[in-house]
Amino acid sequence: MRYSEDYQVPFFMGTANGDISVADAVNIMMLVSEHQLDQLGVGVAGLAKYGAGWVITQNQMTIERLPRVDEQLHVWTEATSYNRLLCYRTYGLDDQDGHTLAEIHSTWVMFDLTKRKMMPIIEAVAAPTGAVKSAKVERLPRVAKFDAADGSRDYRVRYFDIDFNGHVNNVHYFDWMCDSLGTDWLRHYRPTSVNIKYEQEVGPDDVTTAAFRHVVDAATPTTLHRISTGDQVNAIAEITWAPLPA
Amino acid sequence: MRYSEDYQVPFFMGTANGDISVADAVNIMMLVSEHQLDQLGVGVAGLAKYGAGWVITQNQMTIERLPRVDEQLHVWTEATSYNRLLCYRTYGLDDQDGHTLAEIHSTWVMFDLTKRKMMPIIEAVAAPTGAVKSAKVERLPRVAKFDAADGSRDYRVRYFDIDFNGHVNNVHYFDWMCDSLGTDWLRHYRPTSVNIKYEQEVGPDDVTTAAFRHVVDAATPTTLHRISTGDQVNAIAEITWAPLPA
Repeated sequence: MRYSEDYQVPFFMGTANGDISVADAVNIMMLVSEHQLDQLGVGVAGLAKYGAGWVITQNQMTIERLPRVDEQLHVWTEATSYNRLLCYRTYGLDDQDGHTLAEIHSTWVMFDLTKRKMMPIIEAVAAPTGAVKSAKVERLPRVAKFDAADGSRDYRVRYFDIDFNGHVNNVHYFDWMCDSLGTDWLRHYRPTSVNIKYEQEVGPDDVTTAAFRHVVDAATPTTLHRISTGDQVNAIAEITWAPLPA
Repeated sequence: MRYSEDYQVPFFMGTANGDISVADAVNIMMLVSEHQLDQLGVGVAGLAKYGAGWVITQNQMTIERLPRVDEQLHVWTEATSYNRLLCYRTYGLDDQDGHTLAEIHSTWVMFDLTKRKMMPIIEAVAAPTGAVKSAKVERLPRVAKFDAADGSRDYRVRYFDIDFNGHVNNVHYFDWMCDSLGTDWLRHYRPTSVNIKYEQEVGPDDVTTAAFRHVVDAATPTTLHRISTGDQVNAIAEITWAPLPA
């Protein structure tokens, strides 16, 4: 069951070139699924009754272009299917002509908030979205790992990075990963896809390291990313890029 | 002429306690004035025809409480008056019962985008808002300065801090100033007023220092703040606080 809302991009999401960031594109899409779940009575409050929450494990995003400040968007989402442990959800941002600017395929697990571990998906929560139960386990493309980095930057977690769950809202990882490449790269390239795999949450006052590596000889400019805190890997990602007009 | 819009607080503005930050409260208010100016044909695009832009010089905010995630707000703004060099604008966030949660009194100057300096206010731009022309110069309360700091933190400007003007969106100063006080302070106190004076923009790849000092013997817990880049002061502010329930 596809759910959608119209959304006008607020000025405060604007970056140096007038586009919004990957982080804010994801924020807009997640906002719409939050509203869908709230309306079905299975949002954050509805899930709390079961002592459960959703945790995203992978997010594969394709980007034809990022929305611009003031642009009118049609934002849609659909929980497509679920099995014992995973739920699959699709998201999209369409322009006013119905052309899809960005799309996400994502996998989610259900988390027991008391035991702090994964739990089987509660059917009473998943079924109302119209998601089909299927034993089939879909596989999103793997995210390539790397050892030696070409560079890295450290990010001290700031108070306002922390959300109601007491951890860093993982949408900030996109900003850290992109920013680690430096201003010069970001002035000359725009992201065309992001495939991110989440491993472990980042806590208050942690200092994370965002390491990156440029893939040599890739047909499309490609960077690999790793967010880590000490020895703990928090997330890995692969981003492809297109040159911006000079 | 008061202009207003309804706004539902999106989940992604939520902080650790479910309130939104001062920065996002300001974002929401500024969004509504942008819309007012656009509708009057004197928004960013309208001003660009004159080679001009608005620059905020002082922002005095009182906060009864910060809005919460999902809360329905009534957001209003009014350009009240202007003289040769200054324009005065008021903003507010009301709850669903019409009770004002936060209010801003601000002063703005007009900036010549080519000469990069202040210019007299263009009447054709100021008048359509209904602002009254008056020779009277209003004075917002002064922001106290300080020399020796109790502490400070450095903030490296990140790519996504930069807006379309090529400088740091100054709403980030609020995050830096509050974050510099540390997690422990922010878990025990909430801001009840912020008075900020802007001195100089912060550029890409700058490293700023957010220094603070606790005012001794203040009847209300009060902190003084200074954002600086090398010898250049970018902004100073005074924040009052109320203890959060234990």
